[in-house]
Amino acid sequence: MANRPLNLGMVGGGTGAFIGAVHRTAACLDGGARFVAGCLSSTPDRALASGKALGFDDRRNYPTWKAMVDGEKSLPAGERIDAVCIVTPNHVHHEVALGFVQAGFHVVCDKPLVHTTAQARQLLDAVRAARTVFAVTYNYSGYPMVKQARAMVRAGDVGAVRKVVVEYNQGWLAGKLEATGQKQADWRTDPARSGAGGAIGDIGSHAEQLLSYITGLEVSEICADLTSFVPGRRLDDDANLLLRLAAPGKPAAARGVLIASQIEIGHENDLRIRVHGEKASLDWRQEEPNYLVLRPDGEPERILRRGNGYLCDAAKRATRIPPGHPEAFIEAFANVYANAFAAIRAGSGGPQAADEFDFPGVIDGARGVHFIEKTVESSASDRKWTPAAFSR
Amino acid sequence: MANRPLNLGMVGGGTGAFIGAVHRTAACLDGGARFVAGCLSSTPDRALASGKALGFDDRRNYPTWKAMVDGEKSLPAGERIDAVCIVTPNHVHHEVALGFVQAGFHVVCDKPLVHTTAQARQLLDAVRAARTVFAVTYNYSGYPMVKQARAMVRAGDVGAVRKVVVEYNQGWLAGKLEATGQKQADWRTDPARSGAGGAIGDIGSHAEQLLSYITGLEVSEICADLTSFVPGRRLDDDANLLLRLAAPGKPAAARGVLIASQIEIGHENDLRIRVHGEKASLDWRQEEPNYLVLRPDGEPERILRRGNGYLCDAAKRATRIPPGHPEAFIEAFANVYANAFAAIRAGSGGPQAADEFDFPGVIDGARGVHFIEKTVESSASDRKWTPAAFSR
Amino acid sequence: MANRPLNLGMVGGGTGAFIGAVHRTAACLDGGARFVAGCLSSTPDRALASGKALGFDDRRNYPTWKAMVDGEKSLPAGERIDAVCIVTPNHVHHEVALGFVQAGFHVVCDKPLVHTTAQARQLLDAVRAARTVFAVTYNYSGYPMVKQARAMVRAGDVGAVRKVVVEYNQGWLAGKLEATGQKQADWRTDPARSGAGGAIGDIGSHAEQLLSYITGLEVSEICADLTSFVPGRRLDDDANLLLRLAAPGKPAAARGVLIASQIEIGHENDLRIRVHGEKASLDWRQEEPNYLVLRPDGEPERILRRGNGYLCDAAKRATRIPPGHPEAFIEAFANVYANAFAAIRAGSGGPQAADEFDFPGVIDGARGVHFIEKTVESSASDRKWTPAAFSR
Amino acid sequence: MANRPLNLGMVGGGTGAFIGAVHRTAACLDGGARFVAGCLSSTPDRALASGKALGFDDRRNYPTWKAMVDGEKSLPAGERIDAVCIVTPNHVHHEVALGFVQAGFHVVCDKPLVHTTAQARQLLDAVRAARTVFAVTYNYSGYPMVKQARAMVRAGDVGAVRKVVVEYNQGWLAGKLEATGQKQADWRTDPARSGAGGAIGDIGSHAEQLLSYITGLEVSEICADLTSFVPGRRLDDDANLLLRLAAPGKPAAARGVLIASQIEIGHENDLRIRVHGEKASLDWRQEEPNYLVLRPDGEPERILRRGNGYLCDAAKRATRIPPGHPEAFIEAFANVYANAFAAIRAGSGGPQAADEFDFPGVIDGARGVHFIEKTVESSASDRKWTPAAFSR
Repeated sequence: MANRPLNLGMVGGGTGAFIGAVHRTAACLDGGARFVAGCLSSTPDRALASGKALGFDDRRNYPTWKAMVDGEKSLPAGERIDAVCIVTPNHVHHEVALGFVQAGFHVVCDKPLVHTTAQARQLLDAVRAARTVFAVTYNYSGYPMVKQARAMVRAGDVGAVRKVVVEYNQGWLAGKLEATGQKQADWRTDPARSGAGGAIGDIGSHAEQLLSYITGLEVSEICADLTSFVPGRRLDDDANLLLRLAAPGKPAAARGVLIASQIEIGHENDLRIRVHGEKASLDWRQEEPNYLVLRPDGEPERILRRGNGYLCDAAKRATRIPPGHPEAFIEAFANVYANAFAAIRAGSGGPQAADEFDFPGVIDGARGVHFIEKTVESSASDRKWTPAAFSR
Repeated sequence: MANRPLNLGMVGGGTGAFIGAVHRTAACLDGGARFVAGCLSSTPDRALASGKALGFDDRRNYPTWKAMVDGEKSLPAGERIDAVCIVTPNHVHHEVALGFVQAGFHVVCDKPLVHTTAQARQLLDAVRAARTVFAVTYNYSGYPMVKQARAMVRAGDVGAVRKVVVEYNQGWLAGKLEATGQKQADWRTDPARSGAGGAIGDIGSHAEQLLSYITGLEVSEICADLTSFVPGRRLDDDANLLLRLAAPGKPAAARGVLIASQIEIGHENDLRIRVHGEKASLDWRQEEPNYLVLRPDGEPERILRRGNGYLCDAAKRATRIPPGHPEAFIEAFANVYANAFAAIRAGSGGPQAADEFDFPGVIDGARGVHFIEKTVESSASDRKWTPAAFSR
Repeated sequence: MANRPLNLGMVGGGTGAFIGAVHRTAACLDGGARFVAGCLSSTPDRALASGKALGFDDRRNYPTWKAMVDGEKSLPAGERIDAVCIVTPNHVHHEVALGFVQAGFHVVCDKPLVHTTAQARQLLDAVRAARTVFAVTYNYSGYPMVKQARAMVRAGDVGAVRKVVVEYNQGWLAGKLEATGQKQADWRTDPARSGAGGAIGDIGSHAEQLLSYITGLEVSEICADLTSFVPGRRLDDDANLLLRLAAPGKPAAARGVLIASQIEIGHENDLRIRVHGEKASLDWRQEEPNYLVLRPDGEPERILRRGNGYLCDAAKRATRIPPGHPEAFIEAFANVYANAFAAIRAGSGGPQAADEFDFPGVIDGARGVHFIEKTVESSASDRKWTPAAFSR
Repeated sequence: MANRPLNLGMVGGGTGAFIGAVHRTAACLDGGARFVAGCLSSTPDRALASGKALGFDDRRNYPTWKAMVDGEKSLPAGERIDAVCIVTPNHVHHEVALGFVQAGFHVVCDKPLVHTTAQARQLLDAVRAARTVFAVTYNYSGYPMVKQARAMVRAGDVGAVRKVVVEYNQGWLAGKLEATGQKQADWRTDPARSGAGGAIGDIGSHAEQLLSYITGLEVSEICADLTSFVPGRRLDDDANLLLRLAAPGKPAAARGVLIASQIEIGHENDLRIRVHGEKASLDWRQEEPNYLVLRPDGEPERILRRGNGYLCDAAKRATRIPPGHPEAFIEAFANVYANAFAAIRAGSGGPQAADEFDFPGVIDGARGVHFIEKTVESSASDRKWTPAAFSR
């Protein structure tokens, strides 16, 4: 597939689904891929209508995802899809992802990966066996200044990490939006489709991944307080956590606070992370993503800005346009795709390709599911601390 | 004392003590009071030298606080001090405050009030008995925009409060400053002088008071994680708390997160409170104190600014100069004094004068001590929740 | 062309040219167009190599722009390009644009449109005659919150406009970057390729267009002070202007200040516009483009944020993703294309299509050239005011 | 007067006058001075009533300023006032200031100093002759971070200054406030009391002084556009200027833009200065005065914050409380007094004491009057540039 655009398929993401359009725009942003096949809805008629609207060839506009696996497998290499994007509601991820992986296709899957740790481990095993590329769209790790933060922590610029405060503040579910038929609210507040976590699953898992991506530490113990503020809501809409953080396999080394809420009115997509080390602290906000604040001990704080020569290579590579011409959400999302595509083109696969090519992979996805599960367990417990280390 | 300036005395706060100068400047800012007597150090020689530098009459420049009580009592009304400001290290507050209250003097005392809840209750009883004015300088509640926030919450502008996030981020103790002989760091990290709380006592108690002042809710349950990050430090330098909040005597009605840290490098005095209600949220930051952000559901966020006609009466009264000419820390501090002085001039006293004249009083001080005590208890406990309601 | 993607060609913008990639990404962002032909450099060999890298069919990868006009004209409708994007250095715009317009092709051309007002008028006449769509990529008018500002001014929300302050602050040319061979600096500081204006042409013309787009007022008199701070530089790198503003054909009604500079170190692409009316003021900054500040008289200032239900239709239509998920430069650029494409699909053309479909058109381009010309004239004059009204 | 508080008198500033209270608070903030005499109004009855309210001794509560000069002169040194604060409307400054200087009193006078350059020169000569201390309360130069900016420019940290943009944006006179009887608006829009300048005199003169204070450059040529937007208003309420800047006695070396407006709604006291040098730029805003932004070429921007160890000595000396505990307007104002008091105590006087002790002096005041005069002249002229260098 040397120089040709990658052929992509999509499952879910039909007409009206915001996230499907985001994935398509992001995957194609740099002209390195195109969507040629799909099964865009679980309702066959709607699937076909949506695929037609996107201009899919009739033969590759599938009524079911199983038909898609079979149909694409039957096509010659070079014509059949190189990878599939799974953007269905969460409860469908598992069987679809497993089906495509086992058929040997590369996968880009939305988060949270699946509903249970058991499902996640099954998927992880499948990726190990198939040696395919598997990316999970924890898109916030695609921002250049997040990559800069990661590089600085890893280079020791902040010293040993003592504490991380990560917040994901939203307010859009402060009222009972699901009662109005709003589609996004409907499935996100339904345990059957979203899994055991509400806010903690939908956005808390982003916060967990961002924390791990930047610091290299993982959550080893959780003390959680989940609440459903809106009467009748079946999942948490507010999550507040104390954390113990550790390097994988090591004793706890740092403290954390994680807030994920959907009832904080006026906060739109206010994801912020502060990393406090022995020598300096870092501060990044998703809503103004082109800046990273470094606060060194005893010196003026510094505002690092995207696109400048003083940044790390990973941040530079993740940038398309000059400083001051802001890049944002779509570009960060595209960076996840771009790095996964690089792995695909390089012929690398299996869980470890994610580290090698710097994209969130199946291990991140599995760890996220485990995190949600343990948070829900902690919230129901009288004990202060619930062990939560994720073993690969 | 109708129109004459109030006569004030001071205990503690001699030469070189930052907070003594702040109190003197704040108390005298509007010309309504003057310092005429004091015992400015626990070391008699230093006390006398400091008092001389301030121009005290020799007879009213006392070597011990007890001599000061006796000396002032012996003076005729109108000449003797109307009130005493206690700005010693924390461990001295109790006996000094008790001594002056029992002698019938009004008191303005630094926070945290005392070391133990038992001491606090003794002091509270004494104030009840003496019917004197007793203010505790939780100075942040003196900011006009904090008063505006309080008025808006009380008026229902944000709806029922669901959640409060209050942070007090500092970084000045990220290194072992106490080992350098720095005076502020020295006593603040010494349990004998500071009490059982480090960061939680020094700044966490401000956060607790601000939360209560604005929302009218109080901490009913605590889940705390206190840490001493700096090797060899004997008190916590980082405190992260999950909270349950309730109106006094009522069941828990809201959730809270409280962060108080002195190891977050580059954060200077970064006190921020966010109040999330059913209809709107509020956001205030101490370092830019002239603004208050209101985020109503479904409408553009609004930046309210000090000094404008659309503010509440309490905010207007607490303002000295026009909008855009920033007011700051000293003025807020002075507002605590001004309202306590108003109570003194009005002849009101006892614990309830604090509510009536809008200044932090002995009950706030006692509740703060209880809060510190319960936080330390929670941090040592394996249970998630430690009951922490303060009964008057 | 009902539902099919539009076929686009490109002149200029070969490998290594930042702006060519921006145009391609922007034009294709929503999947409504694709590039199928081009002449990507004035050097035939480089043109062909660049077109090959983009995957153009050999027959449609042209060595000269004239060959491209002829080749595309010879193709059947539906196959030949619907529109051409001209992204060459400025001095080439005129003949290329004229050639394509006269051949009946729609054109999207970079700004500043051409070098002289005479050229601009010739092009304007050609567009009138051919009744083609002609867009000029004043991309900042594509931002949703700029459209919101325009709608609010037009609806009278700020009252009659009294004053506009528009700044375009950059610092990248504070040193003699052109001496290092940096390509962007090289042609931008060369009068033969950039025209008579340096900073005033490159970025001042954006400021002028933004002012007119939002307020409906145009520059009627100019008092300019242009400077070349960097020794040996042949064009201005700093421009400071006092302006008189008027509705087209009306007497001056408002005052203006325009700053365009490339020597203000640390300012990256800091375009800001403030509109001051009799009832309120507006404030928008390109580097944080998702916000618009409204300051009504006597009320708290309001921060309007992209993607919300309270915005105008034009702002909503120009938005792709939800509030808080920031959109930025590329999306704004794409909005210029999207509206021009809508005109093309609707079969509308001629200069007036720009107003009807809300994109910057040939009249804006011509007015911009006139503005640059008059600014340079004013700067050389001893008179305070140089008449500068642009007559259509 | 070695260690005793200075004795101060006040002319103007009676009950209800905002600025009188500001001066009294600022002068007394550090306990180094007290007001003991005054003539607080030009109406004798009101003067006496106001002085009584302030607690002046009857003998030193004067009905006229001339009586005050005579009365104080007759008192013994040590009892009579050391200095007088003149806070009357502008048109009264000249004769009062001259009277006190000629009687040998030190003076602190509000700005603008007087109405005409001729008056200013007369006053300057008087100060030279009497060798008294004469301060003009250009209070913004009292901010610690302004002193830091000055020190950095003088130390060459920004390189040679190329351009200064200084804005003083206000909106409080956007409506015809003077028609409502509002006192501040009434005299500020009256040429008989304010002089020839409206916005340019009231706030533009602050901008001019700030520019000179920080950069050491002075205005050598002016191109001004003054407007009265509000119908019937007799003085400008909006001023926009292009400037040429020069070191005293040297040829023009830098460019400037100065905006002073009182019709920019929602801007309260939005004074901002940006200094652009060959190596870096500086940015300071009065409404968030505790920060100074430094933007060095090719490096991250840095936020310097008041109270830190890395600041210059002048900034440190001008600071009372620790970083993060914000200081503001009153403290800056007090710093002007503090430095003038230091000169008085040191026995230094004459115009040059201002430089030596770092406070705005009679030369700054005279230069400001000249600046206003030349701006008004320029605005009425058809020539682009009006020479405006001030010769001492």
